[in-house]
Amino acid sequence: MTTQNPAGMDARLHELAQRARSAQRSLATASGAIRAQVLEAMASGIHANCDELLAANELDMERAAELTRAQRDRLRLDAVRVAAMVSSIRDIARQPDVVGQVVDGWVLGNGLRVRRVRVPLGVIGVIYENRPNVTSDATALALYAGNAIMLRGSSLALNSNQAIVAVLKGAIWEVGLEPDLVAMVDDTTRAGALAFMQLGSAMDVLIPRGGPELIDAVRQHASVPTIIDGDGNCHVYVDRGANLEMATAIIENAKTQRPGVCNAMETLLVHVDVAGALLDRLDTVLGEVEFRGDETTRALCKRAVSATEDDYAREFLDLILAVKVVGSLDEAIDHIRRYSSGHSEAIITESYANAQRFVHEVDAAAVLVNTSTRFVDGGQLGMGAEIGISTQKLHARGPMGIEQLTTTKIVIEGEGQIRR
Amino acid sequence: MTTQNPAGMDARLHELAQRARSAQRSLATASGAIRAQVLEAMASGIHANCDELLAANELDMERAAELTRAQRDRLRLDAVRVAAMVSSIRDIARQPDVVGQVVDGWVLGNGLRVRRVRVPLGVIGVIYENRPNVTSDATALALYAGNAIMLRGSSLALNSNQAIVAVLKGAIWEVGLEPDLVAMVDDTTRAGALAFMQLGSAMDVLIPRGGPELIDAVRQHASVPTIIDGDGNCHVYVDRGANLEMATAIIENAKTQRPGVCNAMETLLVHVDVAGALLDRLDTVLGEVEFRGDETTRALCKRAVSATEDDYAREFLDLILAVKVVGSLDEAIDHIRRYSSGHSEAIITESYANAQRFVHEVDAAAVLVNTSTRFVDGGQLGMGAEIGISTQKLHARGPMGIEQLTTTKIVIEGEGQIRR
Repeated sequence: MTTQNPAGMDARLHELAQRARSAQRSLATASGAIRAQVLEAMASGIHANCDELLAANELDMERAAELTRAQRDRLRLDAVRVAAMVSSIRDIARQPDVVGQVVDGWVLGNGLRVRRVRVPLGVIGVIYENRPNVTSDATALALYAGNAIMLRGSSLALNSNQAIVAVLKGAIWEVGLEPDLVAMVDDTTRAGALAFMQLGSAMDVLIPRGGPELIDAVRQHASVPTIIDGDGNCHVYVDRGANLEMATAIIENAKTQRPGVCNAMETLLVHVDVAGALLDRLDTVLGEVEFRGDETTRALCKRAVSATEDDYAREFLDLILAVKVVGSLDEAIDHIRRYSSGHSEAIITESYANAQRFVHEVDAAAVLVNTSTRFVDGGQLGMGAEIGISTQKLHARGPMGIEQLTTTKIVIEGEGQIRR
Repeated sequence: MTTQNPAGMDARLHELAQRARSAQRSLATASGAIRAQVLEAMASGIHANCDELLAANELDMERAAELTRAQRDRLRLDAVRVAAMVSSIRDIARQPDVVGQVVDGWVLGNGLRVRRVRVPLGVIGVIYENRPNVTSDATALALYAGNAIMLRGSSLALNSNQAIVAVLKGAIWEVGLEPDLVAMVDDTTRAGALAFMQLGSAMDVLIPRGGPELIDAVRQHASVPTIIDGDGNCHVYVDRGANLEMATAIIENAKTQRPGVCNAMETLLVHVDVAGALLDRLDTVLGEVEFRGDETTRALCKRAVSATEDDYAREFLDLILAVKVVGSLDEAIDHIRRYSSGHSEAIITESYANAQRFVHEVDAAAVLVNTSTRFVDGGQLGMGAEIGISTQKLHARGPMGIEQLTTTKIVIEGEGQIRR
């Protein structure tokens, strides 16, 4: 059904968006119980169709022979991963319903009753790469918050995504709602991606899930409002007088528990007074990690290679750690201000005053004292499943769950009041 | 100091932005009492320098001889307007402080304490047209919420704005903070506007205040995050069985109390059963208003001229009213869905069920029952002074005050917890 003709493509995209918009209106009048029922039907559907989903994924895997191991791993589905998709949908359905929640309200002197009510955003777009589980996670989050969703995955995952979307649409239909609530864009060309990002008022928000290239493309080309799930160039600063045993355990956790994710640690800043002792400990514990440091670091840790400016600026997403020895908390904060991507920044300290200053003066989605950056995650923080972690300041900052997929509406009720 | 050389212009802009960023950090550590003190110094300064401000404005007025009356009116300052600027700043300083407010917080099973804290956005940009009072209003709101501000007004108001900014900077200096908290961009060329909209990460949010051309330019060219204060194509629907005396008073208020603003009414939708009686009443009350209606309207109201599609779609901002007679609430809601700009939509009804449906099914920043759209205004709703009324759904929807100029930060405190 895909056409490469831009005008035709746009027409098809706009039609999908219009149908999603219209279906969302019917969902908006459905109760939270019905929305939970849709999610339960989706979970059951995915569970029941596991073999079909794996077969579709197998087609994608066959075509993807030339990918790197990491890429193939992201694309692959197996029974365990399908089961995780099922339980993720059920977790979302167990979250408290936020649609219709009264955020605040008051009565004016003239008797008007004012309240702010939480309402769905409308039509949410998600553009993503190879992970097929994003298809079901994002759909469950969007629908539970009362929205329709438009999905644009990668060409490599097309068979997997089509199979998953077919199951999700079947579940929606089973509950008596409109399957058009989920729209899958099967034009996976670059032109198709651009048209998707430029749907104008047909889409209320676009959330990109993927690597720096995708994020940059969205930053450059999107004409619809976006929420950016950006880089995590996360720092851990070990203060003078810090408990080095605690520091070592936290650094090991933040750097190595899962190095390829955005809340992993990328740079260690360490106060000069504890640098030697800390680097000795890390030399043992982080045996598989490559150290890239400044001159002082290299003097204290023989295996460290020289760090470039770029090493401090980038997200390695790998077993590489940039290290810098600093003379003071101020120097650490200045370094973070310069290089931080605004994701998660941690201090390890025994000083009350320094903990307070760090929390107050470092500007990021999350600041942490004496714990691991790996906790900055919707699930870990008890906020429920997340559609991403926002590194922007508008609308949503940090883990984005159901609430971040809503907006508010002001309701004003009176009996004829006019403005004087 | 302005240079027309694009590279030089950019360099100067970036330097202004950097200085604003650095000054904002010093403001972020200042207490709410200090911020209120800055605003009081600003108010006193404007009061004390009224004559100088009027003289500067006079220079702008002289150069603006060829403007329309409405444009000249917007540009003009007089003693009353300067006094209004003073009291507006004092009103803002009386609002509760939101910086540092703990939005929510909880303790995790592993003992980590989590809280979300309200923090300033950082550097706020405002691009606006001829009203000089925006200069002081926007600055007071931004600074009270802990932000720095970059102002880019029109060339016509340059003398007025420079004089106001000089007073504001003097007030900041008096309190011992950095005058760089307020940056005025004196390059008022179109290229200057574009460079301003494309400051990248140097600016945290850009808020345009002005007409459709400015808004369109920002929509098209801004690379920084924006909050759009958009059109208000506001509808009033008069239901079957409505109290027509109440309806008439509300329509008169919504249409004529101040027709040139975004919360004024633009289209009347009226149920066919009450259309004749209502239009008779309006014929008398809205003597100065031009009616543009559909066929039924024209049959019922002889002075009505024919309404085009465009008349239903646009914001007249004038004593013109589009009218459509509808057969049902559904038809009214469909019309609103098609033409609404998502600002403010009202129903006049005696029916409980229809009021509920209208509130629930119409998607706008504000929905009103039995009252005037003119109340959709930060001051009228008791939310304090506003920097604009957002018609977008992300971050801020409806009147934007101090709270909308902040974001949140997650603070996580522990004693060595790591992720398993």
